[in-house]
Amino acid sequence: MRALRYYGPQDLRLDYDVHEPDCLPHQVKVRPSFCGICGSDLHAYLSPTAIPFKDTPHPITGETWPVTLGHEFSGDVVQVGSEVRNGLAIGHRVAVQPTICCEKCPPCGQGLTNCCDLFGFVGLTGWGGGLSDYVCVDARYVFKLPDSIPSDIGALVEPLAVAWHAVDQAIITPGDSALVMGAGPIGLAVVQCLKARKAGQIIVVEIAESRKDFARQSGATTVIDPQTEDVVSKCKHLCNGQGPDIALDCAGVAASINAACLAVRKKGLIINVALWEEPVPIEVNNLMFGEKRLSAALSYTTVDFQNVITALEGGLLNVEGMITKTITLDRVVEDGFLALMHEKDKNIKVLVNVRA
Amino acid sequence: MRALRYYGPQDLRLDYDVHEPDCLPHQVKVRPSFCGICGSDLHAYLSPTAIPFKDTPHPITGETWPVTLGHEFSGDVVQVGSEVRNGLAIGHRVAVQPTICCEKCPPCGQGLTNCCDLFGFVGLTGWGGGLSDYVCVDARYVFKLPDSIPSDIGALVEPLAVAWHAVDQAIITPGDSALVMGAGPIGLAVVQCLKARKAGQIIVVEIAESRKDFARQSGATTVIDPQTEDVVSKCKHLCNGQGPDIALDCAGVAASINAACLAVRKKGLIINVALWEEPVPIEVNNLMFGEKRLSAALSYTTVDFQNVITALEGGLLNVEGMITKTITLDRVVEDGFLALMHEKDKNIKVLVNVRA
Repeated sequence: MRALRYYGPQDLRLDYDVHEPDCLPHQVKVRPSFCGICGSDLHAYLSPTAIPFKDTPHPITGETWPVTLGHEFSGDVVQVGSEVRNGLAIGHRVAVQPTICCEKCPPCGQGLTNCCDLFGFVGLTGWGGGLSDYVCVDARYVFKLPDSIPSDIGALVEPLAVAWHAVDQAIITPGDSALVMGAGPIGLAVVQCLKARKAGQIIVVEIAESRKDFARQSGATTVIDPQTEDVVSKCKHLCNGQGPDIALDCAGVAASINAACLAVRKKGLIINVALWEEPVPIEVNNLMFGEKRLSAALSYTTVDFQNVITALEGGLLNVEGMITKTITLDRVVEDGFLALMHEKDKNIKVLVNVRA
Repeated sequence: MRALRYYGPQDLRLDYDVHEPDCLPHQVKVRPSFCGICGSDLHAYLSPTAIPFKDTPHPITGETWPVTLGHEFSGDVVQVGSEVRNGLAIGHRVAVQPTICCEKCPPCGQGLTNCCDLFGFVGLTGWGGGLSDYVCVDARYVFKLPDSIPSDIGALVEPLAVAWHAVDQAIITPGDSALVMGAGPIGLAVVQCLKARKAGQIIVVEIAESRKDFARQSGATTVIDPQTEDVVSKCKHLCNGQGPDIALDCAGVAASINAACLAVRKKGLIINVALWEEPVPIEVNNLMFGEKRLSAALSYTTVDFQNVITALEGGLLNVEGMITKTITLDRVVEDGFLALMHEKDKNIKVLVNVRA
């Protein structure tokens, strides 16, 4: 079968002779239909951040390069393992939660699979991925899509679950105000999830003009350009002189997370959603004066996946506008990775139509 | 009257002709008996961190240099203002909460006077201080000491309240494990408060031998020297392979707060108690992998002050050992500030016997 595989930084290859995986008793075999390209994929393209290094196989999958990419995907069930009893059947359209966890560590024992000591992702750390013709996944992580959710939107459930999980680090009372730093794919998904959770003011900070428009379409009540306006004073002005109740940093630059810490009201919560490559110079005194909390959200659990599907079905999330481009598997690097890196303001989510 | 006043960095003067303050109707006039020297005082001695700069008077007190020092003090009531109705009477021995707040901002409105937009401290930002013959303070912030608490211990209520407030940022279930970085005065007070809150393991990280002993006397169950042992792996080993439930950073160096973030269990809480002079290079990914929270504690409220007095009265805090030296007002710089800076391992809390 075909699989887009990672052979190292800037070395992705579409292989045509990859062994088709066997469906184990607890698994479901899925034929991917749509698969998104994520910021983590771009990170990995440049350096193997989320991918096990060449000489250190992933502790759960035992795999290293080449690994198949693609962890934001929907597809059709083509085979159901003999022990699967959760109602999945051949022909079901599904979204796949790409969680890999050890099931032995204390966090796993508490259902916090996103905090597993050894965690990994289908599509990054082995066990195949969505950018291939077939992938076999643990049936617990396969969610049937309702008829109202088309398969391309199904491929957005994963990034939406990241955002949903991040937003749910705060207990949002309807009307609470929120600040979102950065309107990339995750920032925009966060705006949608905040709206679904009935936040009042949703203030987005973004530089790129196209992304400002996306932010407004997604539900931002105010968009601030930090190049021309003072984020902290504008936020205070908008929120009764106090600042927003929560802030989510989806930009991942030191200036943005520090501005977020300064902007939120006293006793407020800042949630880091970005992955960092270096220590961040944090003004800890800005947390201290006002006793603010800096939290960090990582990935998602099955609860988040189900909540996103329920919210999509109920019309609480409207994400069609996020798909800015659909490409084919044979041009993933050129039309996907390179386009996202070089024309990043034009694109939000690039989907691969895996079967085209 | 006498008052030890701050005229600028490294310029403290014991003035003998300072105007004795008048007791306003809402105030109590206190004759200080004992007054501690605090880390904030040392900071101020070197640079005016907590003291309003020469040309920018404090927004509430309107004062600038010279200001009277001393914010950790006990004393005797010598006059009660005409509007005071909280039972205070001449002759009562008291501990003074040195809070100055605007009473107008939203945090003040919510009783979070420690988060006041303009907050200050008696003994740092004007309205006199404990290192003088008399000081007049708002009666709401004056606490009668029970007979069982001598006046020297009464001067420790303030630093204990800092620690109590910090510990109470976590909701401690009896038996929870805690990590304390640094066994200076606040670190040791934190250990005492953790014990009073019935924490199980209390792990202290400290380099100085004398402070290691103080930590053990204060209730530490394990003391780790980071020069010879790996803090993170030792903490995990001591706490079921997972790490302590909470960590309190009282050391205020980047290595310690980062070690604390790495050492606490997943979903754990790190509480910053130190004041910083520069941005801190925080490994935010260490918060992310495990969804940990970094919080910061600032000062205290009247609830904390009362809780400390109740705990002292009930024998839950045993802090006699913390007073390592008692000095006189005419030698505060030589025997206090300079001794604390140059022989810091030998001293925990230096008290000034203001009347000697």
